[in-house]
Amino acid sequence: MNRLRPNIRDMKGYVPGFQPDDVASWIKLNTNENPYPPSPRVVEAIYEEVGVDGALLRTYPSASSSKLREAAGELYGFDPSWIIMANGSDEVLNNLIRACAGEGEEIALVHPSYSYYATLAEVQGARVRCFGLTDDFRIADFPERYEGKLFFLTSPNAPLGFAFPQEYVENLAQRCSGLLVIDEAYADFADANVMELVKKYDNVVVTRTFSKSYALAGMRLGLAIARPEIIAALDKIRDHYNLDRLAQAACVAALQDQPYFRNSCTRIRETREWFTQELIVIGYQVIPSQTNFVFVSPPDRNGKRVYEALYGRKILVRLLSDPLLAHGLRISIGTREEMELTLAALKEIG
Amino acid sequence: MNRLRPNIRDMKGYVPGFQPDDVASWIKLNTNENPYPPSPRVVEAIYEEVGVDGALLRTYPSASSSKLREAAGELYGFDPSWIIMANGSDEVLNNLIRACAGEGEEIALVHPSYSYYATLAEVQGARVRCFGLTDDFRIADFPERYEGKLFFLTSPNAPLGFAFPQEYVENLAQRCSGLLVIDEAYADFADANVMELVKKYDNVVVTRTFSKSYALAGMRLGLAIARPEIIAALDKIRDHYNLDRLAQAACVAALQDQPYFRNSCTRIRETREWFTQELIVIGYQVIPSQTNFVFVSPPDRNGKRVYEALYGRKILVRLLSDPLLAHGLRISIGTREEMELTLAALKEIG
Repeated sequence: MNRLRPNIRDMKGYVPGFQPDDVASWIKLNTNENPYPPSPRVVEAIYEEVGVDGALLRTYPSASSSKLREAAGELYGFDPSWIIMANGSDEVLNNLIRACAGEGEEIALVHPSYSYYATLAEVQGARVRCFGLTDDFRIADFPERYEGKLFFLTSPNAPLGFAFPQEYVENLAQRCSGLLVIDEAYADFADANVMELVKKYDNVVVTRTFSKSYALAGMRLGLAIARPEIIAALDKIRDHYNLDRLAQAACVAALQDQPYFRNSCTRIRETREWFTQELIVIGYQVIPSQTNFVFVSPPDRNGKRVYEALYGRKILVRLLSDPLLAHGLRISIGTREEMELTLAALKEIG
Repeated sequence: MNRLRPNIRDMKGYVPGFQPDDVASWIKLNTNENPYPPSPRVVEAIYEEVGVDGALLRTYPSASSSKLREAAGELYGFDPSWIIMANGSDEVLNNLIRACAGEGEEIALVHPSYSYYATLAEVQGARVRCFGLTDDFRIADFPERYEGKLFFLTSPNAPLGFAFPQEYVENLAQRCSGLLVIDEAYADFADANVMELVKKYDNVVVTRTFSKSYALAGMRLGLAIARPEIIAALDKIRDHYNLDRLAQAACVAALQDQPYFRNSCTRIRETREWFTQELIVIGYQVIPSQTNFVFVSPPDRNGKRVYEALYGRKILVRLLSDPLLAHGLRISIGTREEMELTLAALKEIG
């Protein structure tokens, strides 16, 4: 179809994690969803916005998501002019490329990390440079001065789960001529995060999602924090009404219930630590995780064998198509009960 | 800030219609919202999806919006492979440009029409060609063969309210080398629409929104209908989870309650006809409308004077910044009561 741009016509498109139709019959540990529901205040806020007759739904939402940016600003210690809200962090990752890299210009990412960055670059017609990882989880061959338009650093890393130390990230920020976008989708499950670097370096952007730690994958909510001049550029690019009324109401309520949020994260971290130790006992290699998943390798380093055996027991984990990761599996941390059943299955499978 | 693309740095950004904070104290006729709430089945569907504890919200929505595409396909008579759902029709308008026009390539639009097309082209770095309107509402100087990548035709037109006849649109489709995108945001209020042209011409795309006729502006829902190869390209470009769970639930319910929908549209059309006749009686010029708004000019052709006088009476209508439209106002059709109050105010203002 010659009416399409060649980059669009030829690209493959991103394939999200498998979502089974009969979801209730599975232990679903393949897309890093939170096993606990969102705060009860989220439910209340949605009910209040819908009301008895949905009358508010006929009117446009806040174009600037002003209440969300105020609530997020208060929590993270930034003026709202440093914050943009997004329809899932995917939207703002997309718009960051559009803000900085024209056709044929270069952006970079780490391999392995979130493969969707490359899809977004392909849509834009930007070139992609991949940096590998060393054995001790540092970036291989990163140049003294990186001249690309944008560098995506997923920290904590997905799908491996480790986090880069702050001083290491800071050094990368100094070496990037373009933007350093730190995708902190999983930072709420980590011991530390690097959000403060946004204040220190004018090329640093931090993105977050509400899908994992706030249990709102179903509501599509994310944000970016950066200097106001970067936020202003992203604001010109996004759809002017990018977040619907119920997503906005849910997000404010979720941000304002920090005790619930912290409790949920703590339970997941505790389950993660317990599951990690148990796997080591049965001979698995487990990368120490700062996220709500673990990347694990069975003794025979055959990820596919274990994936299929778990699948047969209605336990769904993630086998990544990347040959570099064929020796292992990414397993989301569910409830303690789900992880006990998964552990028992793994013991049986051997 | 030299890290941004020049087109992004230099562009102004789109300014959506004014949304007052104290909305309850206004008669708000400036953004073409539906004066009636959405179907009660929309409210039920949202409540069912949220449930008592919001547990479903922790999980990702359908990436392919499959139920919506089935419901829309059934209603409009297309296979779901011909349909893509969007987070408001703005999202799919954006992605249509991205699918077809690279940097420096040309797209076209009609002036006056929806000015957001030009903003979207600017973000992409595409060039924009504007075609004016003749006095009898046809496209001025449209070439025998238009070679641009894409042509946006708003029909019914906003902000003027007239619709192009089907045979005229069909002739344009034959003359476009690239895509002809017919933005039918207001078609549900018209006597006819041109959706069937999608089946006849492989370069025709029709877009719709649920913001106006389905009273779901607050939920951000739109769609495009086109050949499967165009839909497949758009599918690669959109965020893979572009619609949240509650928007999906709301949309299916709205589509399935056609009696409610038709009744709501009929009431608005009746009010529009009555309001039009009354305005003519007091000496206004009114363009016969096929939408849920009217473009009207007072006898002295001073739109600003009337806008300000209405504003002072807490009646908000749309004064467009375009000098070509300074002689008039765009007034959304509200409830019969709201339009009676607006008419009384206009009589007072003179």
